[in-house]
Amino acid sequence: MELKTLSDLEIITTSNSKINEVDFENLTFGTVFTDHMLVCDFENGKWEKPVIKPYAPFLIDPSAKVFHYGQAIFEGMKAFKDEQDDVWLFRPDENFHRFNKSATRMAMPEVPEDVFMGGLHKLLEIEKEWVKKGKGNTLYIRPFMIATGHGVIAAPSQSYRFMIILSPARAYYSGEVKVVIAEHFSRAANGGIGAAKAAGNYSAQFYPTKLANDQGYQQIIWTDDATHTKLEEAGTMNVFFRINDTIYTAPTSERILDGVTRKSVIELAKKENINVEVRSVLVEELIAAAKDGSLKEIFGAGTAAVINPIVGFGYKEEYFELPKIENSMALEIKEKLTNIQYKLAEDTFGWTVKI
Amino acid sequence: MELKTLSDLEIITTSNSKINEVDFENLTFGTVFTDHMLVCDFENGKWEKPVIKPYAPFLIDPSAKVFHYGQAIFEGMKAFKDEQDDVWLFRPDENFHRFNKSATRMAMPEVPEDVFMGGLHKLLEIEKEWVKKGKGNTLYIRPFMIATGHGVIAAPSQSYRFMIILSPARAYYSGEVKVVIAEHFSRAANGGIGAAKAAGNYSAQFYPTKLANDQGYQQIIWTDDATHTKLEEAGTMNVFFRINDTIYTAPTSERILDGVTRKSVIELAKKENINVEVRSVLVEELIAAAKDGSLKEIFGAGTAAVINPIVGFGYKEEYFELPKIENSMALEIKEKLTNIQYKLAEDTFGWTVKI
Repeated sequence: MELKTLSDLEIITTSNSKINEVDFENLTFGTVFTDHMLVCDFENGKWEKPVIKPYAPFLIDPSAKVFHYGQAIFEGMKAFKDEQDDVWLFRPDENFHRFNKSATRMAMPEVPEDVFMGGLHKLLEIEKEWVKKGKGNTLYIRPFMIATGHGVIAAPSQSYRFMIILSPARAYYSGEVKVVIAEHFSRAANGGIGAAKAAGNYSAQFYPTKLANDQGYQQIIWTDDATHTKLEEAGTMNVFFRINDTIYTAPTSERILDGVTRKSVIELAKKENINVEVRSVLVEELIAAAKDGSLKEIFGAGTAAVINPIVGFGYKEEYFELPKIENSMALEIKEKLTNIQYKLAEDTFGWTVKI
Repeated sequence: MELKTLSDLEIITTSNSKINEVDFENLTFGTVFTDHMLVCDFENGKWEKPVIKPYAPFLIDPSAKVFHYGQAIFEGMKAFKDEQDDVWLFRPDENFHRFNKSATRMAMPEVPEDVFMGGLHKLLEIEKEWVKKGKGNTLYIRPFMIATGHGVIAAPSQSYRFMIILSPARAYYSGEVKVVIAEHFSRAANGGIGAAKAAGNYSAQFYPTKLANDQGYQQIIWTDDATHTKLEEAGTMNVFFRINDTIYTAPTSERILDGVTRKSVIELAKKENINVEVRSVLVEELIAAAKDGSLKEIFGAGTAAVINPIVGFGYKEEYFELPKIENSMALEIKEKLTNIQYKLAEDTFGWTVKI
């Protein structure tokens, strides 16, 4: 991908790096941030000069629209370091384009490519020591935009702030993941914002997920809100079902996020001659497949977790344990995908972009 | 209502009031704020000491969960001044209880009554000069809570900030309001957060509303997301339809906010011997009533606008103008309701609470 150059970027570096205080072997996901962040404000109808500066809290008005009306979007991306100490991004153009799709749906301005991509490249050059070598080590990238305009009238903001913050990370989930199929709560409405990476979609899940946790489940498999018969997403990930030797995942829609890992899994599976079908799987189909033994695997797919195998699921007071299998397609796909990300295998797709 | 006393409140007043700079005759809704605000933080599992201090921006971390996951709720209330210079609230207990219901749905801690109500009373005592006499003048009250905990993992925050800010206001809407009935977009999902005053519900409406504005409509009448056949809310208000001499409004549900003005309209209408029926009105019913002339009025009901008469509606490329009528039930109810709020009529319901 050809990068647009970012001509007008101010850089203020810190002389006081925190990097030596960080225990990179014991990181809790998303809690440690690097020394610098990118900030770019939208005021009076245009984007101002972006600035890279020391990571720090910032001042915001109590009436800022992000607090009252949730006008906020984000992306999740990762940087990887190969054995030659080069830093790589994975399909960053997908995140950039989805970010601006989310912006449109939330009545926010699109972020220019030179600010998003040019700014990210520059920030990663400055923070490259924070990307550690070795499979499993990543630098999680969080671009986000918030409405900073003042005033408690429910209308789009006139001012916005785009930021990129970086967080060194290891695995997202640990332990065995059991999921429960949603019978009452739901994640998204038809004609709603489920396909956007909008902040409000996530907090809406916290309470139902807490109830699931109380029942011993780590995540929820979301179903369509009208009938609760179609399987849609798992927690904050897209979800795949392996029945016999075919993997199934729901088509993207207004209710389902067009996940970058999801589409990479589909493309990779096709290349590996794994049967993959994009269609809605019904709850009753899943139950039948679990009962007759044809259900082999369920896994989530998302940037943070990459591939997240699920060991069993609950539905209407019943628990279905998945079989222990030898040739897990989930783990095979995960291995191939992460090998591409870490440059341990040839990237025949052209997915990786060097910093 | 008996007020719990707030024993431990710190008050820091400004010596530099902005009140003389404000043109109270020409206020844009929600843009001017009073001199002080209430702040109370939740840390380590408990609420800290609330503080009333000068209204000002505050510092917040870029990774605060409110920015990434939209964990934020609010209420809208109003204070009124009577002819004796006393300041009154309207059904504040309803807002307090709904606030904590919203908190539960968004996996946030409940705010104690002494902090919410005691803090609000104290804040209004300090800011009573900002409440102006005369019908139409109000002080809009915005209690809200945001997730301030750090970290970009999609899970409930451990830290929160509750705040109350105050904004002197006159009428919310101006001009004639035309609405369009939603055929594609929707406001809330079954099993979603539509009944909570959650920030994310509001920004989700901005883009569809912008499209409606482009077609010459000020607001959208939201329909159920599954079938788009039932009329549910109007913009950010509950909606009422008068067919012949009966007014109809949808029952509250997971998709429909339990509005304080909505329930006051119902109670007031009953007392005035106006027929009121709480049931879903179908789009096809509305069209038929518009065509045969039995549709007399449509109006929105909410704290900011109180009662907002609608002059016509659009549906599937067709525009239906409402008749000009002499005895508007909307205006009659608005008059009676605002007379109670401004203490110009006896409050037989016990809705008003003196500061």
